Amino acid sequence: MSGNSIGNLFRVTTFGESHGKLIGCIVDGVPPGIILSISDLQFDLNRRKPGCSMYVSSRKELDKIEILSGIFNNKTTGTPIGLLIKNEDCVSEDYENIKNVFRPGHADFSYYKKYKIRDYRGGGRSSSRETAMRVAAGAIAKKYLKETLGIKIFAFLSQVGNIIFSLTDIQEISKNKFFCPEKKKLSKLKSFLDSIKNDGDSIGSKVTIVADRVPAGLGEPVFDKLDADIAHAMMSINAVKGVEIGDGFNVVKMKGSQNRDEISKKGFLTNHSGGILGGISTGQRIISHLSIKPASSISIPCKTIDKNGNDVILSVKGRHDTCIGIRAVPVAEAMMAIVLMDHFLRNRAQCGK
Amino acid sequence: MSGNSIGNLFRVTTFGESHGKLIGCIVDGVPPGIILSISDLQFDLNRRKPGCSMYVSSRKELDKIEILSGIFNNKTTGTPIGLLIKNEDCVSEDYENIKNVFRPGHADFSYYKKYKIRDYRGGGRSSSRETAMRVAAGAIAKKYLKETLGIKIFAFLSQVGNIIFSLTDIQEISKNKFFCPEKKKLSKLKSFLDSIKNDGDSIGSKVTIVADRVPAGLGEPVFDKLDADIAHAMMSINAVKGVEIGDGFNVVKMKGSQNRDEISKKGFLTNHSGGILGGISTGQRIISHLSIKPASSISIPCKTIDKNGNDVILSVKGRHDTCIGIRAVPVAEAMMAIVLMDHFLRNRAQCGK
Amino acid sequence: MSGNSIGNLFRVTTFGESHGKLIGCIVDGVPPGIILSISDLQFDLNRRKPGCSMYVSSRKELDKIEILSGIFNNKTTGTPIGLLIKNEDCVSEDYENIKNVFRPGHADFSYYKKYKIRDYRGGGRSSSRETAMRVAAGAIAKKYLKETLGIKIFAFLSQVGNIIFSLTDIQEISKNKFFCPEKKKLSKLKSFLDSIKNDGDSIGSKVTIVADRVPAGLGEPVFDKLDADIAHAMMSINAVKGVEIGDGFNVVKMKGSQNRDEISKKGFLTNHSGGILGGISTGQRIISHLSIKPASSISIPCKTIDKNGNDVILSVKGRHDTCIGIRAVPVAEAMMAIVLMDHFLRNRAQCGK
Amino acid sequence: MSGNSIGNLFRVTTFGESHGKLIGCIVDGVPPGIILSISDLQFDLNRRKPGCSMYVSSRKELDKIEILSGIFNNKTTGTPIGLLIKNEDCVSEDYENIKNVFRPGHADFSYYKKYKIRDYRGGGRSSSRETAMRVAAGAIAKKYLKETLGIKIFAFLSQVGNIIFSLTDIQEISKNKFFCPEKKKLSKLKSFLDSIKNDGDSIGSKVTIVADRVPAGLGEPVFDKLDADIAHAMMSINAVKGVEIGDGFNVVKMKGSQNRDEISKKGFLTNHSGGILGGISTGQRIISHLSIKPASSISIPCKTIDKNGNDVILSVKGRHDTCIGIRAVPVAEAMMAIVLMDHFLRNRAQCGK
Repeated sequence: MSGNSIGNLFRVTTFGESHGKLIGCIVDGVPPGIILSISDLQFDLNRRKPGCSMYVSSRKELDKIEILSGIFNNKTTGTPIGLLIKNEDCVSEDYENIKNVFRPGHADFSYYKKYKIRDYRGGGRSSSRETAMRVAAGAIAKKYLKETLGIKIFAFLSQVGNIIFSLTDIQEISKNKFFCPEKKKLSKLKSFLDSIKNDGDSIGSKVTIVADRVPAGLGEPVFDKLDADIAHAMMSINAVKGVEIGDGFNVVKMKGSQNRDEISKKGFLTNHSGGILGGISTGQRIISHLSIKPASSISIPCKTIDKNGNDVILSVKGRHDTCIGIRAVPVAEAMMAIVLMDHFLRNRAQCGK
Repeated sequence: MSGNSIGNLFRVTTFGESHGKLIGCIVDGVPPGIILSISDLQFDLNRRKPGCSMYVSSRKELDKIEILSGIFNNKTTGTPIGLLIKNEDCVSEDYENIKNVFRPGHADFSYYKKYKIRDYRGGGRSSSRETAMRVAAGAIAKKYLKETLGIKIFAFLSQVGNIIFSLTDIQEISKNKFFCPEKKKLSKLKSFLDSIKNDGDSIGSKVTIVADRVPAGLGEPVFDKLDADIAHAMMSINAVKGVEIGDGFNVVKMKGSQNRDEISKKGFLTNHSGGILGGISTGQRIISHLSIKPASSISIPCKTIDKNGNDVILSVKGRHDTCIGIRAVPVAEAMMAIVLMDHFLRNRAQCGK
Repeated sequence: MSGNSIGNLFRVTTFGESHGKLIGCIVDGVPPGIILSISDLQFDLNRRKPGCSMYVSSRKELDKIEILSGIFNNKTTGTPIGLLIKNEDCVSEDYENIKNVFRPGHADFSYYKKYKIRDYRGGGRSSSRETAMRVAAGAIAKKYLKETLGIKIFAFLSQVGNIIFSLTDIQEISKNKFFCPEKKKLSKLKSFLDSIKNDGDSIGSKVTIVADRVPAGLGEPVFDKLDADIAHAMMSINAVKGVEIGDGFNVVKMKGSQNRDEISKKGFLTNHSGGILGGISTGQRIISHLSIKPASSISIPCKTIDKNGNDVILSVKGRHDTCIGIRAVPVAEAMMAIVLMDHFLRNRAQCGK
Repeated sequence: MSGNSIGNLFRVTTFGESHGKLIGCIVDGVPPGIILSISDLQFDLNRRKPGCSMYVSSRKELDKIEILSGIFNNKTTGTPIGLLIKNEDCVSEDYENIKNVFRPGHADFSYYKKYKIRDYRGGGRSSSRETAMRVAAGAIAKKYLKETLGIKIFAFLSQVGNIIFSLTDIQEISKNKFFCPEKKKLSKLKSFLDSIKNDGDSIGSKVTIVADRVPAGLGEPVFDKLDADIAHAMMSINAVKGVEIGDGFNVVKMKGSQNRDEISKKGFLTNHSGGILGGISTGQRIISHLSIKPASSISIPCKTIDKNGNDVILSVKGRHDTCIGIRAVPVAEAMMAIVLMDHFLRNRAQCGK
């Protein structure tokens, strides 16, 4: 299969570049009869769009979604849903100076090695602009999962540099521009981001994704385990360098007597597993963590080469994120929704529930 | 697609249970004309098989591989290669006492919830015995990648509990039963494992996988990025709870000026990315880390329930691993080989190299 | 996989309904570096579009294609190509009278049974309007196959009712509106179609597709044989009820001594096989025939039922084809091109040529 | 995807050659909890096996099936079912004389062109021996479809040369070795086959497959239409050169007023469509016809070439079928069952029934 699709039964295929006319996607396999409107998709798109704060890209995009097909009388028909968003604020001149230069940390070099083509306009296809379509497609999955199964998916910023955020207040996440669950640490976060930004630098972060009320039984061992498909989906997000399920890398230091989740007639006593055992959901809360690298486009100069192999010193201007992880939050939610939706359908196919 | 296959063009499908007659697999899409014999596969199988040390399962399995098809006059024919290994040392009585009980930390509960069937014999399909077929299939990929492209894949135990092992001596890895690259820390490791074992407990670990001389250009954005497919493959291994590429979770604390790998005409100056940018290999060393949870089958008693929901106290006997990560090393190499092989073919298809 | 995609490596996914805003598709897996412009696609679209003669639908659609992505500086970049065509001449009122009625011979009844939704506007997703996107995607494949491999694909109307057309003059096919290879039979064909049209009726037909200079070696036994994938692709075209390769149903009466194609050092002596043996191309001309049913939308009244199960007498008005097979010619060419392109890539992946 | 698998959710992957140790397959995606035993599979295998009459291959194979996995306490567990049959009567010497020669009408030439390997032993992978595994896998599907949904699938020999057999007596099909539904024409058929056999020749045939009580709603437009997937599955059977659904090629001469199946409150008035409209089952009987070419391995000498391109005269000895179509009957049933099973699961996934 070609690489621009994800999901087996709930299948999302995206297209479009950062500075092309538009970006779009096709969502195939949507169950028929679901009430669906633009507002269902726009809500999450607004959470991801650039320009929301001074710490994310200042590119002005309304990210206004258009539904092109698959809906009749406000209901899904079971046929593919075509979606698109026009690119409105393309400042390709920003990229004239990197026309023949590979930006370190970006996909410029590897894309050129693979395709022998240099689409320098804002990263072309490799830009995180593409993730807008993931959010749109994921919103369809989210809605179905919530209304039909009661599944609730949310994500939050759980760490930036050394500042760790705990899930102390779920409501708080939607109240600030950082998707941060701890109100009292917001000013510290802002100060820190200000200092990074003033240095012309960027900072890494961690995002945590939670799915509640997922029924037991989702996941298709031995290769399409639920956690394996979550790892695939999450690692496909731009800038993600690590994925954990449940206790993740903390298990390295744990003993079996600490890590295994004991069970009583009232349910599991702990949730080190992150809600997945043997690749199948247990009915507990599903928890996944992502590490997201700092933006590579910063104004601090760096060494690199051009297409001819000459050494070059580059300082990347343009409109970039101080902390990519912020806008990755709704994207991570979308990917979780797409995976769960696909597995709900796969499980229903084989096991009939 | 059903869940027991991995890979698009180099496609591995496995079957069989821990205590069934045999386990097997089909490897489809192998290029024709490759010289291949049993010894090519047996080498890695011997590295994974149980009974190699006192810290892994004492089950006696020779894991003798049989090639059933796809080879003629010692060469691959391009048609599917069928493989099987007989199960010889099944002691199903070991499992009589857990017939109706869900072992915490295992797949017993989730499989039962999904399939409504309790195959209690050694974990049935969810047993890590299945990974023997991954090793066999991976050995075919490894051979092709090495002989045709010069790619070298190896893995090692990089952490157990608090003991960290650095890649100081690649040769050392194959000289001890732990796949440990630091000879001087072996006695410390043994003492630690002895103490864990004496406590009737188990311990978590970290495994690092390396692939050298991978050509630039492998990976199929935006969803089937090379790192996304590695994450999928690795997370599908039993007991894996986290996957990192390159700096992994360390990027959370890093600045862009530290993390982006600068380039000179002599090549990249650092390799924080782990050899993958934008989901495509850069030509640098590919590095991935896995966290592997401690075995849940330990003799220390635990709380659980039976099929009827009654509270039960369980102490798991049988032949289990003190540190699962040891035997996961050849499995992780195999999964890396399968992913790289698949992506080599995918890239050749589209880009013609 | 969801049902709106075809091809494994050269992968086409379509969306859109007959009377929606637009129809579109994504073509993924296109090799990079191919010079491609709108005119490459528009040529075949013009051959398929309605309104070309009095024997096909009079709906006025320019079928003007827009390329949305995947092209940079006139070359394919290797990233997905998004395509769309706006629907301009939607006369949904034509369909008001069938809002609750199932048109016999159409997909109305079966779609309703499956999806519980009745998108009555021109057949919705089941309309042959969708085939325009196949033609657009197929034109990309056609161009690549021709320029890179010298493969030439063409189709023609080979039978209408009892009038049989032989491939006496390839040039003639493009000179008339019927894709008919025998000029001398054109007036007979027109008279026959006039009589059918005057009766308010429609007529079935046969279309023959030819691919020349296909290299030996394409096809992936045992299930994805080249002929099996051609059959799949052709049978997926609206109104097709039969597919033949080479001698097709004539083999029922043939003896082995007649049918097997003998070989000499100069090549095959005959081509009963239609260029495919054991599911793999032989290097001979590939030949396939399709039977295409008569349009079911005719003015002659018929018995049917409405959504409530009541008996109804229906006379279908609107802008319909007297002989669907005419416009199926470029669609059949496109499907052949998509299959050959996909198999060229699949063969290159495994066998390296 | 590699070419040795069929089906998306009910997925069959086969391996093995005509004269290798054994042939086998993996059936993935089987619903759990189905009672399944060897006898369920052996019944259809016995109908297909060679040596049943003087008109089919005299190779002595019991085709004794072994179930290797996926069953526990006589029930399917939902995990992959491994199956194998040992090859017992391999007379590879029969093939020594064709070691370097391409048999006309066989896959010898095209396989060699593709893979550069000549596995001359009985056709290797291209032999119809592989179809035994299709029958075994299909038997699982058949059983599920019958017991769970009441679907009844059967096929019969509908034409041999000029002798046409009508479906006058379903019971008769299982009473003779020819799967022929007309008892009164059996002696005529035998005489005809005797004369063909005496001439050292072979004859083509037609097979008709029927599926009754298929629920409305199966099929996934626009590419994975039910008829498209049936065409794919049927054309993948060795020697098949044509596939029809319903009226098939007869529609070429039909008018819309004759062909469209009118509907009344009591149901469809006719079934020209063969039970499928718009690629989705209607609830009517599904009917498909196949044309099967005459065996190419006959004793009448023919012209061909060897691997070095030299002209050769070849007379093929060995144990071959006078009429391949006879043994194709259970294979065609199996392929229909596999397709319907897959589409039942696909429809249940999306539409929830």
